[in-house]
Parts: sequence; structure tokens; C-alpha cells
Amino acid sequence: MDTRFGSYSIASSDRFDPEQFFRGSLADLKADGRYRTFLELERRAGQFPLADAPGRSDPVIVWCSNDYLGMGQHPVVLKAMHEAIDRVGTGAGGTRNISGNTRDHVLLERELANLHGKEAALVFATGYVTNEAALSTLAGMIPGCIVYSDALNHASMIAGIRHSKAEKRIFRHNDVEHLEHLMAADDPARPKLVCFESVYSMDADVGPIKAICDVAERYGAMTYLDEVHAVGLYGERGAGVAEREGQMHRLTVIQGTLGKAFGCGGGYIAASAPLIDFVRSHAPGFIFTTSMPPAVAAAARASVAYLKASTSERKRHQEVVATVKSRLKAAGIPVMPSETHLVPVFVGDAHLVRRISDELLTQHGIYIQPINYPTVLRGTERLRITPTPLHTTEQVDHLVEALTAVFRTHGLETGQAA
Amino acid sequence: MDTRFGSYSIASSDRFDPEQFFRGSLADLKADGRYRTFLELERRAGQFPLADAPGRSDPVIVWCSNDYLGMGQHPVVLKAMHEAIDRVGTGAGGTRNISGNTRDHVLLERELANLHGKEAALVFATGYVTNEAALSTLAGMIPGCIVYSDALNHASMIAGIRHSKAEKRIFRHNDVEHLEHLMAADDPARPKLVCFESVYSMDADVGPIKAICDVAERYGAMTYLDEVHAVGLYGERGAGVAEREGQMHRLTVIQGTLGKAFGCGGGYIAASAPLIDFVRSHAPGFIFTTSMPPAVAAAARASVAYLKASTSERKRHQEVVATVKSRLKAAGIPVMPSETHLVPVFVGDAHLVRRISDELLTQHGIYIQPINYPTVLRGTERLRITPTPLHTTEQVDHLVEALTAVFRTHGLETGQAA
Ligand SMILES: Cc1ncc(COP(=O)(O)O)c(C=O)c1O
Ligand SMILES: Cc1ncc(COP(=O)(O)O)c(C=O)c1O
Repeated sequence: MDTRFGSYSIASSDRFDPEQFFRGSLADLKADGRYRTFLELERRAGQFPLADAPGRSDPVIVWCSNDYLGMGQHPVVLKAMHEAIDRVGTGAGGTRNISGNTRDHVLLERELANLHGKEAALVFATGYVTNEAALSTLAGMIPGCIVYSDALNHASMIAGIRHSKAEKRIFRHNDVEHLEHLMAADDPARPKLVCFESVYSMDADVGPIKAICDVAERYGAMTYLDEVHAVGLYGERGAGVAEREGQMHRLTVIQGTLGKAFGCGGGYIAASAPLIDFVRSHAPGFIFTTSMPPAVAAAARASVAYLKASTSERKRHQEVVATVKSRLKAAGIPVMPSETHLVPVFVGDAHLVRRISDELLTQHGIYIQPINYPTVLRGTERLRITPTPLHTTEQVDHLVEALTAVFRTHGLETGQAA
Repeated sequence: MDTRFGSYSIASSDRFDPEQFFRGSLADLKADGRYRTFLELERRAGQFPLADAPGRSDPVIVWCSNDYLGMGQHPVVLKAMHEAIDRVGTGAGGTRNISGNTRDHVLLERELANLHGKEAALVFATGYVTNEAALSTLAGMIPGCIVYSDALNHASMIAGIRHSKAEKRIFRHNDVEHLEHLMAADDPARPKLVCFESVYSMDADVGPIKAICDVAERYGAMTYLDEVHAVGLYGERGAGVAEREGQMHRLTVIQGTLGKAFGCGGGYIAASAPLIDFVRSHAPGFIFTTSMPPAVAAAARASVAYLKASTSERKRHQEVVATVKSRLKAAGIPVMPSETHLVPVFVGDAHLVRRISDELLTQHGIYIQPINYPTVLRGTERLRITPTPLHTTEQVDHLVEALTAVFRTHGLETGQAA
């Protein structure tokens, strides 16, 4: 019997009352500061990062979007989506197997395989579904497979690994020695799969791809790398951190999303042709579902192709990120260490981080969503700022001023101002 | 150790060779007639049900789309999607909680709640994800919940129930007595959840909604009805079979898709406000993923709103379905019993159903995907025809002639011609 729900006691009636249970559970969340309210936004196409919010006449400046490069508003991407709608309509009308395999899906997969230098790719509804479906199928159907999973892996990888029912070992975050130690203790003949990320989006650090590939090769293990927060952003053609570090060819599977830097929606894996064909043939989460709208596939393909050729967005992105980090640090804001484009700012309390976020919005027109449990550990609640190449110098100035003012109100400056 | 893979022996080398394993498994599928090849289609917007296929100069007539009413090409739906792209861009740019909650999502959920006469609704990336996320959360987090699941429930419901780790009882397909028998044997104080479908899309029969609600109420059980193959198609406003039968208000949760009759993509549940808020707050498959592209949400909302008001598509749909059924039966084609808009035709062999499908395509320009295991049981392989209001009289004539010719070639007529 589950005891997580303080406010609901199952013995309180002789019949279960679901509404009372749901209300009790929600009351607990509220008391705990974990109840989430979604800010309703209406993005302004062509005016990224501006958006409208209810009850506000002025637009809000969005500083927490995962549309990291603003590609969701890029004319090339918009045009591809418009054209596809006129060409083939709105929906796919079927699963990939039953009338829902369109030319747009096929071309997108070809583009993604090419991006990562792999033989083939497979597209899913989202990056989450990709991890769940691919990992549960691979780890679940490879006989005797042992999964080695980084302790900070994303919920979607955890779901896939869990659903596979494979034996699993958790290695300490980014700790290659621990990984090797665990592998060395296992039967050399057993199939092995190492699952990790390149950019960990909440802690803003980077997985040691080369070192993990070294260990994996030593023990004959397959590797599965989630580059969700890196594709489009790193590497000469935007294939991710593995490209930047010359490791792409060593990874068994590279996983990515089309919903963040590529500005659309959907997820994918890229790998050898037989592996892709295996997942395509066996994953329930791929087989039994309507394929993505062809227009979304067309838009995503245009975005991937564009960012393969154009490096100016990535360059400007890193410049704005560097500016935001150094300016905030100089102002005494507790910026957490980051090797990436993500700028986490420490608060450490669920109620307080929400209050700060509210004040930024109401007093300064800045939208930065508070990040709380279960997305991050309790006591490490934070703001997570995502600068983009489209944020202007004035917007950066305004962000620094606003954060400084609000943090000062709450006595949260680190005082490490330069 | 899994022994499903005849062609691969794990003892064949001292280290596991993944590529050899994948190839062996795929060879097994091919030998078994279960290897799926996807026909690449390019639908012709405005010319539904026509589509282009590689290597063919003439278009193919699609007879197996789940875009049951052709709404994926309806001007109202196309326009809504175009407008949304111009207004807000292509992607949502974040999870619902972190900058990805747009006005289009909120309005779509309001429209869906209204459609089903419920307080609230929640949208997910697909119908599959909806079932997986909602059922794993409800059954998994309600303390001591027992799930009663129809034996023919869809893979996505099975996934959700499995992942919940709740105790489950499988009742014989559509067998209310068996359901009651199972419930009566369980502790009256335990929370209970009955999961079933309205239209079972492979067998084309309908769940006994009223009788199941009667039993559920008697035992204080919650009910979860998948109306994926019914929304848009049945009931005065297109809310599904439960609407048609006056049972909507009795169901705890109604689940549907936006990717079939509504012609777009995405899935949803509609229920009481606390239940929706509970799933919204707890389901990892909802929380940790980019929300659907706002333009898809806008298109889906336009489609739902349109079909709520217009009944002519539903009327014409049923007429074409009736014509196809009676014409095929009269021609001696083994049409399986169907109370719905789906027209399954029995073949009973994996290789043969594929050959028939190929001949329909190459010789007659008709696309009907073969349905084989694991979508249906082995030995019950079939064609599954989906007439739409947009199929013309000439196209129906052509279908009957083509099927008759191909079935005659293979000696498959039933001889029950009128
Ligand atoms: C590491 C990681 N993997 C996968 C996902 C899921 O991708 P998507 O948003 O496309 O579902 C996310 C975030 O959403 C993520 O942070
Ligand atoms: C009964 C049933 N439920 C759910 C789904 C999944 O819906 P979607 O295609 O939107 O993922 C399907 C088919 O795809 C289905 O047949």
C-alpha cells in the first residue's frame, strides 16, 4: 500500500473515493511548494524571444525557452511547414506501417542519419518517447543485456530502462572509473549497454564521451548517448558534442530531439541499419501509434539542414551565453558552474524560487520558470536561464538589472561581485 | 535468457556481437512473414484519398487511412494550422511547465473538455503516450489499485497498465459477466479501475459501455474508456460511442486521439478537474517532454470544433461504409463481422495477405496495408479497409472489382455471393 499521500487515508471510508484522493494529493503538493502552475504564453512569431501572457499589455521576454536558437521562428522552417501543409495536409493519418509513412518522414530520417554519420535513423513523436521506446526495446530484447546508466540520466531514459526489465547498474554521475569498476565485475559474455547524456540540462555539465567510449570498447559494450540538449548547438554541423569531440563514429546509438534547438517537435535515434531496423520492427512505442504530422517532419528537416550548413547561430549563441554568465557573476548572482549554454542560478528553496520567478515576471516582464522537484533534487531548486542568439544587448542588460534587484530583495546575492 | 531469437545463439562467441544479433532477429521476422516494409506515400492535399507512391506515375487510392473523414485535408483545419504558424512559429520550445504552455494548448484542452462534457482535459504527444502516461500514473499512484482490463485492449493501454505495476485482472473481451465475477472476488475497499475501448479497431466491434458502467458503479470502480477510433465519428457532436449511447457522464476518464478522425496528431484524456490535475502533476510522460507544436494544437482544435457542429461528414461516412460492406459481401469477399466503420477482410496467412496487398497496389493502384502479428493474432491476418466520406462511387466500384479479381486468383472467395 502506498503511503506517499499524507492527506488521504484509505481506511477513511469503506469504499475508495477517487475525488477525495486526488484533492488530498494535490493539497500535499501545494503545501510542499511543488504544485506547478503553467504560465500561458502566446509566442510572437518573428519577435522571438517575446511572448504575450494573460493580463499583460506589454510582451514578456522569455529567458527559459529550449528553442535555444529561435529556429521555431526561422523563415526557412516556417516556409517548409507551410509548404508541407499545402502539399499533404495536416496529419499523417496512420501509423508508419499503415498509411502513415510519408516522404517527409523518410527524408527527415535520411537527413538525421547523415547528420550523425550513421547508416540510418528512426523518428518518434518526441525525444521522451524515443528514449522510452528505443531503450525498452534494446535492453529488453537483447538477451541477458545489462544496462549501465548514469545516475543523473533523464526521466525518459530511466523509463525506458525500467520498462525493459533488464538488469541495471547505476554509475555515479560522469564517473568513468565507477563505470569501469561495475563492468569489470560482470560476465564478459553478457551484452552491455551504457546510457548517458552529452549535455545534462539541469546541471549544465557534459558527459565524458571519449572516456566512456574507451571503457565501453574495452568491455565490448554498446553505447547510447542522449544529445537532446546538444543537437543543433555543438559540432561543425550541429550534430552535438560527440561531433565536436570527434567521437560520433564510436557511439552505437545517438539520440536527439527535434523540439529544442531544431525548434519543431519529435525525437530520433541514429545508428547502424540493422539496429534501426530492429527497433523499427519491435518497439511498441513506435509501431502502435500515428506517425508525426508530415508538416512537422518537413519543418524539422529544413531546420536540421539549415543548421548543418550555417554556423553563425551557434557562434552568436555561445557569445550571448558567455556574456550572460560573466555579467551575472559580476553582479553577484549565484550562477552555478556551467560548461554549456545553460545558465542555472541557485536558489535552494521551492517556495522562494517560485516567489522570485513571480517577481521577475510581474515587476520586470521577464519569464524564467522556477525548476523544482522532481526535475531537480530538493534543496537545489533553481532558475535556469537559456540565452539565445536572438536576445539583444539591451535584453541582457535588463536581465542582469532585474535579477540583481530581485535577488537583493531576498538577500540572495553571493557578494562575489568583481 | 531470452530464447525468442532462433538465429542467434549467445554462446556463439565469447563477446556479444550486436550487429549479428540484430541481423539474425530480422532474418527470423522475414522467414516468419512478419517483416514490415513501409509504403512511402505522398498524400495529395485536396485530393484525398489519393496519394503518390514511388515509381508510380498514377496516384494510389488509399483505402486504409485512419484519417477517417479526410479532416487532415479540410480547408478549415489547414487554415488554422497556417495561421498558428504565422502567429507563433513551429515548435512549443519547452515542456508545458517550462515555457511550452501556449494559448493553443489551453484552448484545445478547453474544447476537448467541452466535447466530452467533462470539467477538464489534458493533451499529450499522441494517443499512445496518453494511455501509457495516464494509466501508469492513475493505476500506479492510487494506493492498492486493481486494474480490470479487456483482453483485447490496445498495446498502449497494456503498456500503461504494465508500467503502473498495479495488480491486474484480464476480463474476456467484452464479457461483462466475467468482469463482474472478477470484481466480486476482490476486496470492496480496494480502488478499482476498469479499462476498455469503445471501438476495437482490428475486430471492428464495440465495447458494452452501459453494461460496464453498471457493473463499475455497483462495485465503486472507476472507468477508463479509449474512444480513439470513435471520436469525431459517433454521437451528435462527434464525442464518440459513449455520447451516442448517453453514457458519457458515467465514465471517469474518456481518452481519445487527435490523429485519426480529427486528422492531426496528439492524444488526450477528459475527466474531472482533480483527476486531470493529478495526472498533470505526476505523469512523467507528461511532465518531462516538449509540448506539442502549437500549430498542431490549433489545427486539432479547429477540427474538433468543426465536427462538433457539422454532422454531414459522419452521415456520409456511414453511408459509404454500408455500401462497401454490402457490395463486398455480395461479391463473395470474406468480410468479417463489423458493427463499425471498419471493414476487416479475412485472409488468415501472413505471406498471403502481403501478396494480396502487393497485387492490389501494383495491378489496381489500391493501397490496403496487410495487418499481421503482433497487431492481430497469428492465423487471423487480414486486410482492414477504411471507407471515408470522400471515397467516390467510382472508387467503391473499382475497389470491389479489384478485390474480387485478386481474391479469385488466390481461391479466397467465400462463395456467399448474393
Ligand atoms: C536529456 C533529455 N532527454 C530527452 C528529453 C525529452 O525530449 P522531448 O522534449 O523531445 O520529449 C529531454 C527533455 O525534454 C531531456 O532533457
Ligand atoms: C485503441 C487505440 N488506442 C490508442 C491508439 C494510439 O493513438 P495514437 O495513434 O494517437 O498514438 C491506437 C492506435 O494508434 C488505438 O488503436
